[in-house]
Amino acid sequence: MRGLTESIGPPSAPAREAAWLRLDRLTKPPKSLGRLEEWVARYCAICGAVPPPEVRAAVLLFAGDHGVADEGVSAYPAEVTAQMVANFLRGGAACNALAREAGADLLVVDVGVRADLPRHEKLLDRKVARGTRNLLLGPAMTREEAEEALRVGFDAARGRAAGGATALVLGEMGIGNTTPAAALTAALLGAPAREVVGPGTGVAGEALERKRSVVERALARWGRRREDPVDLLRELGGLEIAALAGAILGGAASRAAVFVDGFVATAAALLARELSPEAIGYCFFGHLSAEPGHLRQLEALGAEPPIRMGMRLGEGTGALLALGLLRGGLRAFREMATFEEAGVSGAGREEEP
Amino acid sequence: MRGLTESIGPPSAPAREAAWLRLDRLTKPPKSLGRLEEWVARYCAICGAVPPPEVRAAVLLFAGDHGVADEGVSAYPAEVTAQMVANFLRGGAACNALAREAGADLLVVDVGVRADLPRHEKLLDRKVARGTRNLLLGPAMTREEAEEALRVGFDAARGRAAGGATALVLGEMGIGNTTPAAALTAALLGAPAREVVGPGTGVAGEALERKRSVVERALARWGRRREDPVDLLRELGGLEIAALAGAILGGAASRAAVFVDGFVATAAALLARELSPEAIGYCFFGHLSAEPGHLRQLEALGAEPPIRMGMRLGEGTGALLALGLLRGGLRAFREMATFEEAGVSGAGREEEP
Repeated sequence: MRGLTESIGPPSAPAREAAWLRLDRLTKPPKSLGRLEEWVARYCAICGAVPPPEVRAAVLLFAGDHGVADEGVSAYPAEVTAQMVANFLRGGAACNALAREAGADLLVVDVGVRADLPRHEKLLDRKVARGTRNLLLGPAMTREEAEEALRVGFDAARGRAAGGATALVLGEMGIGNTTPAAALTAALLGAPAREVVGPGTGVAGEALERKRSVVERALARWGRRREDPVDLLRELGGLEIAALAGAILGGAASRAAVFVDGFVATAAALLARELSPEAIGYCFFGHLSAEPGHLRQLEALGAEPPIRMGMRLGEGTGALLALGLLRGGLRAFREMATFEEAGVSGAGREEEP
Repeated sequence: MRGLTESIGPPSAPAREAAWLRLDRLTKPPKSLGRLEEWVARYCAICGAVPPPEVRAAVLLFAGDHGVADEGVSAYPAEVTAQMVANFLRGGAACNALAREAGADLLVVDVGVRADLPRHEKLLDRKVARGTRNLLLGPAMTREEAEEALRVGFDAARGRAAGGATALVLGEMGIGNTTPAAALTAALLGAPAREVVGPGTGVAGEALERKRSVVERALARWGRRREDPVDLLRELGGLEIAALAGAILGGAASRAAVFVDGFVATAAALLARELSPEAIGYCFFGHLSAEPGHLRQLEALGAEPPIRMGMRLGEGTGALLALGLLRGGLRAFREMATFEEAGVSGAGREEEP
């Protein structure tokens, strides 16, 4: 989509190499911090600097409602989206507590909540529509709405990066949104609905069967046509999912680290990859959700998330926990002594090839 | 062993229940923070209070040398144990950086380093012997040394808990120590050497074959006799491994949360379980190491570690990263609003049974 992908290039290869050079000189067996070292090197490459800047983290929580919630695909009524946004603004949700713990600023972006929301300094009003239409019956959005929602996310990410954030934590709130996320995932990966539909907020038994059936019928309605990613988003997506995809592109365009949360955010990452494969090089996939389709998404992206606690809350909570790992890795990178500085003998018996 | 296990009882069941009662009322789908909620409930049960006290963390790093290092089982020369202790005392190692990031105090306990170490306020001199003897040729320790090293760990843990620590992070340093850890693991789990011997600091090829052979021959020398855990420790263990096992018992006796690190520390946990099965209820297993035998140990303990980054450094580094997860969970536990407080509707469609 014009204006969203042109300025995305690869992270800096020289910075990555400089990072590895230092990592291998620190007082530990080479590579013994495992993928934590890869995260440090990627963060350096993304920032283009060794030593890299301190992590300044900003959470962007995109909120939207879903017409498909009428089909009974969630354990919660649709008004919970707006109620939870109010909870975010009062600071009482899981994401707030974890953002405070991580020293991250948190902004809610209303990209499609059905209700009117109060003005608040931590709420950005970018409502594109009052929720999507029911994707079982027809396209969830117009093409214009999908493009506008992508742009909302892109601009929000660019804005936070311009304000000094080096890491963007992307989360979402939208009752019903694991249904469009599953539909998009099935469409993008060519997977059957049953492999990517899960309990979401906690549906089981007949309600879970109904959710599977909704996704199957939506895919049948759409007809699994090859089409451009924005049209796919329009057909089966959601406003906050579009904004998440846009924010991934905006983060990559700003050379910020992008912390992607669980199943819904990773569906957006799959979509962002269709628009700009290079953008995935800026993403950190923090945790493996209990939602069964998440593993499938991560495998498709070649990502091995470090945290596996069976979380399934959304709101950026898994990504916020993972941010702490990167901070730890960077602290080690900055503060550890080299073998030379510490007067520690190197490996006498090198690894054999 | 007398004096080390008598005062260990189970964590508080009423505190655990009170924790779950609150967890299920917070504004999130029930159990949607997954095992993070289990960690919070366990911490409450261990402290015996809801709300639980803030986490005050203390790292105990037990250092010792190994006679079996003469067999060429490590990529590093034995003098690196003392050199790394000096690095810890100057604050230049990975554990130092991660301890600072976690706001944890760090104390090194010399339980068996071969070299003379300088006096230092962060070094506790509890040297039981100048390294172990070569376990390939005979018992690594005398029974008295094994008991004394267990007691060193127990007392150190009790001391830190008495000083206010609610969480103990246990790490180790000892060139060659994945060899006794593998031997103990094979002995305790009845596993063949090849399944529990791994690269450690980074041996491969012929050196790895040699390490496997050393463990196999040590097990053959010992004869896989059934005997009491302290005798097993004496035969195949290490001084810092004994101290780690003692520290697990001391943490449990003090009702502190005990963060267990990787392969070597988990071998000590297997041994602690033989002395007091109840002690494992106080342990948090933080990460899955790249060392192949670690998974086998964790499965035997019924533990599912949250962090999987392929780390294999020791020094308590994986446990320190995991401590941040518990802190996040506790922050959410303390600061999140309940559904009632936030005016958020509960699940309209409950999970079906």
